[in-house]
Amino acid sequence: MKLYSYFRSSGAYRVRIALNLKGIPYELQPVNLPRNEQFTAEFQSMNPQALVPVLEDGANVLVQSLAIVDYLDETYPKPPFLPVAPAARAWVRSIALAIACEIHPLNNLRVLRYLTGPLGVSEEAKNTWYHHWVKLGLQAVEERLSRSSVRGSFCYGDAPGLADIFLIPQLANGRRYNVDLSGFTTLLRIEENCMRLPAFQRAAPSAQPDAE
Amino acid sequence: MKLYSYFRSSGAYRVRIALNLKGIPYELQPVNLPRNEQFTAEFQSMNPQALVPVLEDGANVLVQSLAIVDYLDETYPKPPFLPVAPAARAWVRSIALAIACEIHPLNNLRVLRYLTGPLGVSEEAKNTWYHHWVKLGLQAVEERLSRSSVRGSFCYGDAPGLADIFLIPQLANGRRYNVDLSGFTTLLRIEENCMRLPAFQRAAPSAQPDAE
Repeated sequence: MKLYSYFRSSGAYRVRIALNLKGIPYELQPVNLPRNEQFTAEFQSMNPQALVPVLEDGANVLVQSLAIVDYLDETYPKPPFLPVAPAARAWVRSIALAIACEIHPLNNLRVLRYLTGPLGVSEEAKNTWYHHWVKLGLQAVEERLSRSSVRGSFCYGDAPGLADIFLIPQLANGRRYNVDLSGFTTLLRIEENCMRLPAFQRAAPSAQPDAE
Repeated sequence: MKLYSYFRSSGAYRVRIALNLKGIPYELQPVNLPRNEQFTAEFQSMNPQALVPVLEDGANVLVQSLAIVDYLDETYPKPPFLPVAPAARAWVRSIALAIACEIHPLNNLRVLRYLTGPLGVSEEAKNTWYHHWVKLGLQAVEERLSRSSVRGSFCYGDAPGLADIFLIPQLANGRRYNVDLSGFTTLLRIEENCMRLPAFQRAAPSAQPDAE
């Protein structure tokens, strides 16, 4: 498999964790987003959305991190990323989606660029925007996880899964923008447990060959 | 089942289509978002994210539209929302996610409120922002669907599924903000086929009891 990745991309970070947890070897192809390498004709013919990650698996070209992680879980069932019961699966998915749909889209590179570019927003207001959505989103996730009866060392039970794959990159991203995460005690405890595992360590932005 | 819904919410619209396609009867409980009914203590105890849709199925309280739709597909397998092969499933999911993660989150009520509120953006610039993300996102979806070999009368083959459930509310939402959709010929053809089906017609915003 070949993963088109950028070390700071949360979407690519999710897929790197997933590949590592499944024990799937892969080739890494860095795409430098700040240098606009995602807008080359070659890359856009593969992904018209001009976003990483893209995963090539033989003739299959897969896009959108959640679709890729689901694909990996369906093609390599062990260890599973989701529980068996539909309601439990929906709960785990809803945690991942609370991050994928309510936090991350508001804070990725192209949105921040639009704020300071066409909208003429100041750097300070841009950072306030960033902090606002990360805190609001993580507060809801913290509340749901802290009162959950199914939480264990990880978001669901005592093995890492889909929700952790989405949570860890979002915490790293928030920290990079100096969001005060100290109030999210449940999330930080889960992060600590994740970061003890080589699958998460090797997927971290700082461990990537294209890290600056 | 009981669905907490707002007639204009794209997320709730998706779940209404899914329930109708599966032929599941449900009770509708409107939540008026502009009047901030999602911020009551009662509603937030159910969903700390203060967002619709929420689906109650017996003791299960489900949030996040994609998690709910997946839950319905897993508990009521007929008709299926996804194909069988993992790569095909990933393709269909990636279309739904291109809408759920790259278009809709930038344009929902709370984001538009933040733009004109804290960021002090003008109504005109807010509308430009809205049009920008809808067009950019739909262009990529149009390009992927128009060159797809698996597209039929619907996004995938000749039966409606997960991608259509996400596409139709996004087109309706864009139209409401006067986005010129005429260039998206593939998407409009699929929409026409969807809107011939009672499942889609009955889920439309204008058909809801809380429509204004």
